[in-house]
Amino acid sequence: MKTSKVEVVTNIADARSTVLSAQAAGETVGLVPTMGALHEGHLRLVDASLAECDRTVVSIFVNPTQFGPGEDEDRYPRTLDRDCSLLAERGCPMVFAPSASAIYRPGHETYVEVGSLAESLEGTIRPGHFRGVATVVLKLFNIIPANRAYFGRKDYQQVLVVQQMVKDFDLAIAVIDCPTVRELDGLAMSSRNAYLTPIERQQAAGLYKSLQLAESLYQAGECDVATLTGHMRLSLAEADITKVDYIAFVAAGTVTPVKKITGPTVVALAARLGTTRLIDNLTIG
Amino acid sequence: MKTSKVEVVTNIADARSTVLSAQAAGETVGLVPTMGALHEGHLRLVDASLAECDRTVVSIFVNPTQFGPGEDEDRYPRTLDRDCSLLAERGCPMVFAPSASAIYRPGHETYVEVGSLAESLEGTIRPGHFRGVATVVLKLFNIIPANRAYFGRKDYQQVLVVQQMVKDFDLAIAVIDCPTVRELDGLAMSSRNAYLTPIERQQAAGLYKSLQLAESLYQAGECDVATLTGHMRLSLAEADITKVDYIAFVAAGTVTPVKKITGPTVVALAARLGTTRLIDNLTIG
Repeated sequence: MKTSKVEVVTNIADARSTVLSAQAAGETVGLVPTMGALHEGHLRLVDASLAECDRTVVSIFVNPTQFGPGEDEDRYPRTLDRDCSLLAERGCPMVFAPSASAIYRPGHETYVEVGSLAESLEGTIRPGHFRGVATVVLKLFNIIPANRAYFGRKDYQQVLVVQQMVKDFDLAIAVIDCPTVRELDGLAMSSRNAYLTPIERQQAAGLYKSLQLAESLYQAGECDVATLTGHMRLSLAEADITKVDYIAFVAAGTVTPVKKITGPTVVALAARLGTTRLIDNLTIG
Repeated sequence: MKTSKVEVVTNIADARSTVLSAQAAGETVGLVPTMGALHEGHLRLVDASLAECDRTVVSIFVNPTQFGPGEDEDRYPRTLDRDCSLLAERGCPMVFAPSASAIYRPGHETYVEVGSLAESLEGTIRPGHFRGVATVVLKLFNIIPANRAYFGRKDYQQVLVVQQMVKDFDLAIAVIDCPTVRELDGLAMSSRNAYLTPIERQQAAGLYKSLQLAESLYQAGECDVATLTGHMRLSLAEADITKVDYIAFVAAGTVTPVKKITGPTVVALAARLGTTRLIDNLTIG
C-alpha cells in the first residue's frame, strides 16, 4: 500500500501549469473528475488512470450548477481529508480542489448548451442538470488539459453528454467510461448511498435486482420492453421501492427508447428511497 | 513583398497536429479566425499575429450557425483563391479552411450558451448569432490550440462575447482585439461592403461620419446621450441612411447603456443600406 502524500492544488493557474509541465516533459495525464465523498467506484477510476497515464489528477468539486432548486447540494457530503487519505493509499499524487468562487467567478454567464441528450431520463427530472455538468466538465478539461478523462458508467447519460460535447467541441481528450462498482448486494456505489437509513439501504439492493431480473428474463427469451418493465416494477415494489422516476430501455450509446430488444440495450432506472434519489443501469442484449 | 505559397489545410486532425508540433518545438501560435473574403482589416490582424507569434494560422470558414433565417449566408462572398494570394503576399504560411460538414458533423447538438451579452444590440436583431459565433470560435480554439487569437474591433460585441467565453470556460488563449481598419472615407472595412451598390457605397460613409460627429460634440462638451443620439440620427438621415437598427452608447467593455458620458464609452450602431446590413463603433470619452 502506497501512502505518499497527496498534493492538494486549489489554484487554477497552478493546476494548469503542473499539467502542462508534465506534458511538455512527454508525460500523459489522466483526469478523474469527482465531487468528492470518494468510494471504491471513484477509486477504480483512479486505478485505471494510474495504470494508463503517467500522471493522474483527481478533481474534487461539488459543482453548484448541476444541482436544481431543492436538490441535495447543501447536504452533499464533503470529506476532503478522508478523500485525500484514500487517494494517498491508492498512490494518486495530485488533487485539484478549487473553491466554488474560483470556478464560478462573479459575472460568470457562459454555459454549455446540451442538445437532445438532456431532454430525456435524468434531464427531464433534473432540468439544467446536464447543462451544469457539461459546463463544469468543459472547464475542468480546460484547466487540466488531460489526455484522458475517466467517468463511471453508473452515470450513463452523463457519459453520453460528455462524449457528445467532446465530439461536438473538437476537444482533444479521450473519454473513458469504466464499469459500475457495486456493493456485495449489488447496490451501485454512490456518494448518495450515505444518505440511506439502514432500512432504505436494505431496500436499495432491489434496484440492481430489478435490472438483473430484466437481464435474466431477456436471456430466457423475453424481448418485449413493456413486459420486462412490468416485471421490473413488480420486483421493485417487492423491495418496497415505489417512487420510481423512470425505467427506460434505450439503444446502447443513445437515449433512444426501444420497444423490443434487438441489440445492445441499456436498462436505466431512477428511484427515490425516502429523500434519497438513486440511479443505476445495466447493459443487456 | 513575400510570395511564399500558403498551405491550405482542410482536415481537423492535420491542422491540430501541425499546431501542436510547432508548440512542442517551443513556438507560439497565433490564430486569426475569419469567414474569408479577406480585406485589409483581416490582413492587419494577420500582420499583428505574424509580428507577435512564431506561427500564424488564418481560419477561413463561413459559419452557418451564426446566420439567422433570411440572412446572407448564401450570398456571403467566398473567395478562397484570392484570400490565399493575399495571405501569401503577407507572408502567412497556413490557412485552415474546413468544409461545413467537417465542422458540423451529423448529430452535432452541443452549443455555447452566451449569457446577457447576447441579449442586446446585435443579439436582439440577430437572435442566435452569438451562440453560433461562440460555438464556432470555441471549436476553432480547440482545433487550433493557439496562444493568441486576433479579432477586429469593428465587431465590438463579438469581441466581448469571445472574451467572456474565454474567461468563463478557463480557456488558455489570449484574445487580442485590433483597431478597425477604414476606407479613405471612413467606412469600416467589411466583407459585406462588397454588396453595396455604388450609391449605397457613397451613403455608407455616413455611418462613420455620424460616429465622428458624436465624438466631436462630446469633445465640445456634450455628454447627454439622448442629445448626441439625436444629432447622429440627423447626420445619418442627411446621408440617406434611414433604416437604423440601433444607436447605442455603452460603457466600454460592456453592453450596459449609459445616459451620460462619464468615462470611456463605445458608440455602436447598425443600419441597413438597401439589403446590406452594416455595423460600426467608436470609443469616445
